[in-house]
Amino acid sequence: MSLAEMIEEMAKGARNASRQLRGVERAKKDNALELMAIKLLEKQEDIIKENQTDLSAAKQAGLSDAMIDRLTLNPEVITSMAEGLREVIALPDPVGEVTGMWKRPNGLLVGRVRIPLGVIGFIYESRPNVTVDAASLCLKSGNAVILKGGSEAIHSNLMLSSLLGEALKEAGLPQESIQVIPSTDRDAVKFLIGLEDDLDIIIPRGGEGLIRFVTSHSRVPVLKHYKGVCHVYVDKDADQKAAIDICVNAKLQRPGVCNAMETMLVHEDIAETFLPAVADRFRQDGVEIRGCQRTVKLIPETIPAVESDWPAEFLDLILAVKIVSSMDEALDHIEKYSSKHTEAIITNDYTRSQRFLSEVDSSVVLVNASTRFNDGNQLGLGAEIGINTSKLHAFGPMGLEELTTTKFIVYGQGQIRS
Amino acid sequence: MSLAEMIEEMAKGARNASRQLRGVERAKKDNALELMAIKLLEKQEDIIKENQTDLSAAKQAGLSDAMIDRLTLNPEVITSMAEGLREVIALPDPVGEVTGMWKRPNGLLVGRVRIPLGVIGFIYESRPNVTVDAASLCLKSGNAVILKGGSEAIHSNLMLSSLLGEALKEAGLPQESIQVIPSTDRDAVKFLIGLEDDLDIIIPRGGEGLIRFVTSHSRVPVLKHYKGVCHVYVDKDADQKAAIDICVNAKLQRPGVCNAMETMLVHEDIAETFLPAVADRFRQDGVEIRGCQRTVKLIPETIPAVESDWPAEFLDLILAVKIVSSMDEALDHIEKYSSKHTEAIITNDYTRSQRFLSEVDSSVVLVNASTRFNDGNQLGLGAEIGINTSKLHAFGPMGLEELTTTKFIVYGQGQIRS
Repeated sequence: MSLAEMIEEMAKGARNASRQLRGVERAKKDNALELMAIKLLEKQEDIIKENQTDLSAAKQAGLSDAMIDRLTLNPEVITSMAEGLREVIALPDPVGEVTGMWKRPNGLLVGRVRIPLGVIGFIYESRPNVTVDAASLCLKSGNAVILKGGSEAIHSNLMLSSLLGEALKEAGLPQESIQVIPSTDRDAVKFLIGLEDDLDIIIPRGGEGLIRFVTSHSRVPVLKHYKGVCHVYVDKDADQKAAIDICVNAKLQRPGVCNAMETMLVHEDIAETFLPAVADRFRQDGVEIRGCQRTVKLIPETIPAVESDWPAEFLDLILAVKIVSSMDEALDHIEKYSSKHTEAIITNDYTRSQRFLSEVDSSVVLVNASTRFNDGNQLGLGAEIGINTSKLHAFGPMGLEELTTTKFIVYGQGQIRS
Repeated sequence: MSLAEMIEEMAKGARNASRQLRGVERAKKDNALELMAIKLLEKQEDIIKENQTDLSAAKQAGLSDAMIDRLTLNPEVITSMAEGLREVIALPDPVGEVTGMWKRPNGLLVGRVRIPLGVIGFIYESRPNVTVDAASLCLKSGNAVILKGGSEAIHSNLMLSSLLGEALKEAGLPQESIQVIPSTDRDAVKFLIGLEDDLDIIIPRGGEGLIRFVTSHSRVPVLKHYKGVCHVYVDKDADQKAAIDICVNAKLQRPGVCNAMETMLVHEDIAETFLPAVADRFRQDGVEIRGCQRTVKLIPETIPAVESDWPAEFLDLILAVKIVSSMDEALDHIEKYSSKHTEAIITNDYTRSQRFLSEVDSSVVLVNASTRFNDGNQLGLGAEIGINTSKLHAFGPMGLEELTTTKFIVYGQGQIRS
């Protein structure tokens, strides 16, 4: 069987499984998730052994320490994977919720009920714990999932999926509900995203290159974000102490992630006091500042920013800084360069806070809080399978509810259309 | 300027317009819609004159009477277009609704607010009144729209869009909110659907060929249905008189549309009484029946169905009929052949009605009512821009609310992430 045939076969299996999953009650799904947690803990030695194979290959291939770190499964990581499963168990089941019901003049009772999307294709890089995270969210929301992880994690992922499969079987659920593609061939992604009739959505998580490839070749709708070029606008009426704490947190609490601040916009009226103070904090932590001409004058060690710095997602200890003469200039800058991911305003002015919330067209818009809160858990969705910056389906972080859609149900008494 | 450049220019204009439309209050949008209605009525002679040019060309090109009929604008059609605008005025504005707001343990107040999608590409065939329908729904929901109509309606569509543009201008809204592509070049569609960064969604309406083309080439998410292969399952516990009325209505009230019944599934226990009775009604109206082997035995004049009849969207006076031994067989048939558009069960059995509603994976599932009710107006959405059978964003008929998405807004008091 060719790779393409195998993946098509897996997709057919997933489609059948998804039909069975549609109507499965919560208790059965939760039971499967609990069995998964138990198996992960019981079989941690087997998992770690397979992970060692991946790690040896990775070291031989000369992968960076950061990559090796992300790839590593140890008792601590496995315990947190099991805890993650139990957190998903605790979340409500979105499937079956009737989100509204109304009576039409002709007596038809029309409602909308939440249903699973169906079959999800999930494409991701290195970290093998994502396999369990993604699989558990898909299962709880009644979806079948086909997972294509990074080739460097293949042994770990296959071991994990065989444990998940055992748990599904013991729980009386179809094993095809969760399948890892057992191949490191890069063509696997291409075949998977071509299966328009068998998959309902594709969620890619990884670098911009992977996501651009998936988006341009997919016949299946894709939920994704390319990058997070997040802005914090420090208004003239900002509480400067709070502004410093928020900007430092937004940049430094975890610089390599999509909701970290990449550009700071500062109103000219407070630039002379605020900028030197915040630059001092950034300097202590080794942040390189690339500033506009006015910033360069205020903070001597600033590197002059070039055009390509404004749309850049640095994911590093680099920050672009611009002084603006008005809120309009800040809004124009955000409109031009934002990736529609996350933007924040720091202000104590009521009118400007409302205007920022209303006019900024990003998936999460904050007043007086760090951009790092754009995260399903932090915002209260309970979990997150990814962040979507296309406007379609679910703009922003996606939790269990965002892995469902609604269908219309209609109760009639013989109505016909005239 | 090349066609590609022109369309890109239009898309940039639409993007700018969409930024302005985001925050426009309802009264201003409704005023623009009212001015449009007034202009259509005042300028009907000009519209009819341009429409005559299209009609002459269509007649010379030998278009069918049905096509000519769909293309024709007369005072009656124009009046109903103006009435359609006033119906949209009466609908609530979905933009700005806060669909939920909650407080997090750290004090962050997190909400979801409804916002326009942004820029919509709308691709359709012949009927010029769709230009006004689609434009009004997009404007009311705060979206800019680029319309690409059928080449045979080009003069009518350009006349209509120039009137809509005048109304926008008088209402103080950007004229680029509604733009018709002034070209009959088929490449226009190709250029439009390639503009990933400037368009948020594409809605194609037309034949399956057009929609397949758009889906396979689009870089922008597409909301669409290929076809409607709608089933009615007549259960053994059906009220046979109601079943006949519903099946006749579902097939005959308008046979050429996507929510008409294409396959009727009949439980064997009632086939001997129900089938001859309903076949009699269909015979009177000239419906050709293509039946399974058991149907052929019961209704002598039946044409034996071939495999290709089961997934067929006839859009004509043709009906596929199958006798099933159980509800399971009916559900399996629907699972295999349905287009996920609309399915109905006719029964007085409570358990089976609930099972059908729960297990059938279609955008609208009905009990004891005609499939013809899958329509935004009929289901109470107030209006409809199309029906989506992809699971993404809005499964089923799409009204104003379905032309929006939600973003998160967060009110903080200096929170940072730890």
